[in-house]
Amino acid sequence: MTDSAMTQPVLINGEWRASVGTRSFRAHNPKTREATPDSYPVSPWPEIDEAMRASARAFEQLRWVSPDQIAEFLDKFADLFEERRSRISELAELETALAREPRLNSVELPRTTGQLRQAAAAARDRSWSMPTIDTENNVRTMFSAIGPIVVFGPNNFPMAFGSASGGDFAAAIAAGNPVIAKANSSHPGTTRLLAEAANDAAAATAMPAAMVQLLYRTDHDDGKKLVSHPLIGATGYTGSRSAGLALKEAADKAGKLIYLELSSINPVVILPGAIRERADDLANEFITSVFMGTGQFCTNPGVVLLLEHETTAPFVSDVQSRFNEAPVGTLLSEGVEQSMTASIGALKSAGATVVTGGSSGGGEGYSFNNTLLQVTAATFLADPETLQCEAFGNASLFVIADDTAQLQDVINSLEGNLTGCVYSDTGGSDDAVYDEIAPLLRARVGRLLNDKMPTGVLVSPAMNHGGPYPATAHAGFTAVGIPASLRRFAALQCYDAVRPNRLPPELQDTNPTASLWRLIDSQWTRNHVGA
Amino acid sequence: MTDSAMTQPVLINGEWRASVGTRSFRAHNPKTREATPDSYPVSPWPEIDEAMRASARAFEQLRWVSPDQIAEFLDKFADLFEERRSRISELAELETALAREPRLNSVELPRTTGQLRQAAAAARDRSWSMPTIDTENNVRTMFSAIGPIVVFGPNNFPMAFGSASGGDFAAAIAAGNPVIAKANSSHPGTTRLLAEAANDAAAATAMPAAMVQLLYRTDHDDGKKLVSHPLIGATGYTGSRSAGLALKEAADKAGKLIYLELSSINPVVILPGAIRERADDLANEFITSVFMGTGQFCTNPGVVLLLEHETTAPFVSDVQSRFNEAPVGTLLSEGVEQSMTASIGALKSAGATVVTGGSSGGGEGYSFNNTLLQVTAATFLADPETLQCEAFGNASLFVIADDTAQLQDVINSLEGNLTGCVYSDTGGSDDAVYDEIAPLLRARVGRLLNDKMPTGVLVSPAMNHGGPYPATAHAGFTAVGIPASLRRFAALQCYDAVRPNRLPPELQDTNPTASLWRLIDSQWTRNHVGA
Repeated sequence: MTDSAMTQPVLINGEWRASVGTRSFRAHNPKTREATPDSYPVSPWPEIDEAMRASARAFEQLRWVSPDQIAEFLDKFADLFEERRSRISELAELETALAREPRLNSVELPRTTGQLRQAAAAARDRSWSMPTIDTENNVRTMFSAIGPIVVFGPNNFPMAFGSASGGDFAAAIAAGNPVIAKANSSHPGTTRLLAEAANDAAAATAMPAAMVQLLYRTDHDDGKKLVSHPLIGATGYTGSRSAGLALKEAADKAGKLIYLELSSINPVVILPGAIRERADDLANEFITSVFMGTGQFCTNPGVVLLLEHETTAPFVSDVQSRFNEAPVGTLLSEGVEQSMTASIGALKSAGATVVTGGSSGGGEGYSFNNTLLQVTAATFLADPETLQCEAFGNASLFVIADDTAQLQDVINSLEGNLTGCVYSDTGGSDDAVYDEIAPLLRARVGRLLNDKMPTGVLVSPAMNHGGPYPATAHAGFTAVGIPASLRRFAALQCYDAVRPNRLPPELQDTNPTASLWRLIDSQWTRNHVGA
Repeated sequence: MTDSAMTQPVLINGEWRASVGTRSFRAHNPKTREATPDSYPVSPWPEIDEAMRASARAFEQLRWVSPDQIAEFLDKFADLFEERRSRISELAELETALAREPRLNSVELPRTTGQLRQAAAAARDRSWSMPTIDTENNVRTMFSAIGPIVVFGPNNFPMAFGSASGGDFAAAIAAGNPVIAKANSSHPGTTRLLAEAANDAAAATAMPAAMVQLLYRTDHDDGKKLVSHPLIGATGYTGSRSAGLALKEAADKAGKLIYLELSSINPVVILPGAIRERADDLANEFITSVFMGTGQFCTNPGVVLLLEHETTAPFVSDVQSRFNEAPVGTLLSEGVEQSMTASIGALKSAGATVVTGGSSGGGEGYSFNNTLLQVTAATFLADPETLQCEAFGNASLFVIADDTAQLQDVINSLEGNLTGCVYSDTGGSDDAVYDEIAPLLRARVGRLLNDKMPTGVLVSPAMNHGGPYPATAHAGFTAVGIPASLRRFAALQCYDAVRPNRLPPELQDTNPTASLWRLIDSQWTRNHVGA
């Protein structure tokens, strides 16, 4: 059997079919470093173009599909996902080395299906669209679907952020858009099974044929062409900064919306009083957070900021011991291992010293020894750019400042991040320092935490999984949290003196659902207009 | 007296001072084509840099300034503006040739002060920040000020869109940001007087010294450097497409937010039944709209789409007569006149024929004869890009389609626009065509109108003065309409397990104002948490 005979089909316009591409690739089992059985095609432009045109047709067809029908599709997909859980989790484990239990089956899967069902509820409820009505002047505005959405998923959450199943996917669909999923190359098979479930659910609920399409890989130039094409509504991207910025440049130039989640080192400030009060708990919390998923979380605590104090050295030493004792996890891919080597090298070259670890290996398959680095704030401030290099994996950098002023300088030198945490004591001895540093950290992060590690990203309407550039490309949007995440994939559409029967149901005088919140004459209400 | 001795000062950090720049420029009286008395400096980078750093300090100082104080400042500014109305309107008329009455004094001025007062009310009320609270998980998120905002104002609304007084200015300030105003070169004196009123109001209400700063002109490269600088929060730009896109490229590359309003030809579809029913009214409405402000409105009806029909030729002929009869207004500047000549030339070169007008002159000072062009849909479709060239002024292009299918093709070839209108009869004879074309037009415009010209842009919470690229750079935001316009100049900020006393007032359990709407556990309410 030739390699191409085993190449998996792409999903275009509702059909699984052989790619017209001549090149293919394989994912690798991170634990064995061996290629997995199936190969996956690299789609050439004509194939991408076909998917894009089918998606544009699907977007037109969606005009006649109600939000309730879209909700049914999302619910059905969640059901099918659960029915097929063992096959999906098995392949996901093979491709990512993430543990089937508890991580994939008991944590990520329910998070993902929960997200799909929340998105279904948001589609049904419609409050995400923020209908705003000025009755006196008969001007009415709401957010509406924007067009085909391209979703690029990351390597670290094959389900919850997967291009055919995750947060961007669910938000794009719930807002009424079709999705072109671009699988992450490290888990194409998992994405294929998820796209199968999505496509089966779409067929069962009478969605347009091209509601969900799947491509595995494209040439870089074709990727840029896709995200900047006039037929595309917007793009959601989660992944490496370099690839993301290349896509952003192309999309920006064409005036196309692109939402990116690029990188974050998630600074954690631990103040002396907190260490004095609960050093053991803090070390425990930190270890749990920093090694979660072998550190391959976008919210991994990559930098810890400490003040020089009698408690500092013992704390670092305690953390060092725990790093040594903790098992070394497997990394997602050879690329992640290589990138760890490069990042740790960069940090060392800029003056960070290795407390423990620092070299690849130590675990099963692709791996890197649990790595703790340390640097003085003065050295950090001499080259903050390099010392903010994200080491995506089981590593963290401790930065030790002489005093509050120097700690402030370090915080002021930080780029935009998804999260920032401050641990302080409960007695109040850290409060003065907290007040000095919190506003500075606040301005540089999307989510500020107290006494809590950043790795958990709750799917809540009040969540913000976003932040200033380069954590994301627009600090006004969140990638997690329904309904806010839907508004990324929507356009504001105003109806000025449009005749009543021509208005979308959400903007007519009668509230089309029992639950839809509308801003009528500056009052949020679920009533009908005039009621 | 040398020219430089008469050069007006810049406003930096609360002080009016001589620019360190060596170059200067003058605005011209559009009616006489002569230079106005005062000259204005071109600010070199060190001066811009100083303003930027002062703005960054002001942003830090604003942490201790309450929304109520900011509201006081905006209200005070509106009061001072009204007190000084005669001097401001006089200079605005001199610089723009817009009539003091009714346009400047009785239309634009009350619109502008109304906008400032609405922004003040929004700052006080705080609902624009959309506090979102998940009580079970203690996660809380709101929109907050983002940093120094650079505002570039357009030539056509010296007050209502002015960089030191208009919609972007009011939105940026009300959201809690300081503003660096970059005056439009065609009315620097008006902007100076407005910045004086703003600065006096800021001083009287104890705002940070650099709350409002004013620069008149910068080199293009310095402008790009400014909008892409790490200290800048975001930029609001209204003006020409070419200058706007150059700024956008620089800002995008640096990951800085920039909101642009670039160009729009505002397609108006007039269906045969409507002409049959009320040709005279339609011609009247169109003439009023197209010549408003000598056609220099971003919502000017630059393209009218008609179906070939027995009513069409008589309608065109009627409009032609009215174009001939209407007085020719004065244009804002030599640049606008030159641009009209270039645009009309481009339209002709692409196959449009001149029904009437077509050459410069005909009015007092800078002017261009009222110009009506006509083109078949077939010709339009052969070069839609050129035939969508915006002729900013008293001109319009009639596109005549053979049938509905061709009309659809024309609409599908349109770029993003601020507005799109459809006129249809009241009896229903146009309804079938309406249903065919409205969804296509809807997707291409920010505001869809029925039986109404687009030139009026109401300051309403339900307004959308925005639209798909290239009308603006982000279809999810509006430049007009409070409170939505404020959210352009804000970042989403989440507080996860942050201790209650450290939360901003808007996110604490107790609602800090009687009127603040918050989304608590997915219910919009004005109650306290737990109430």
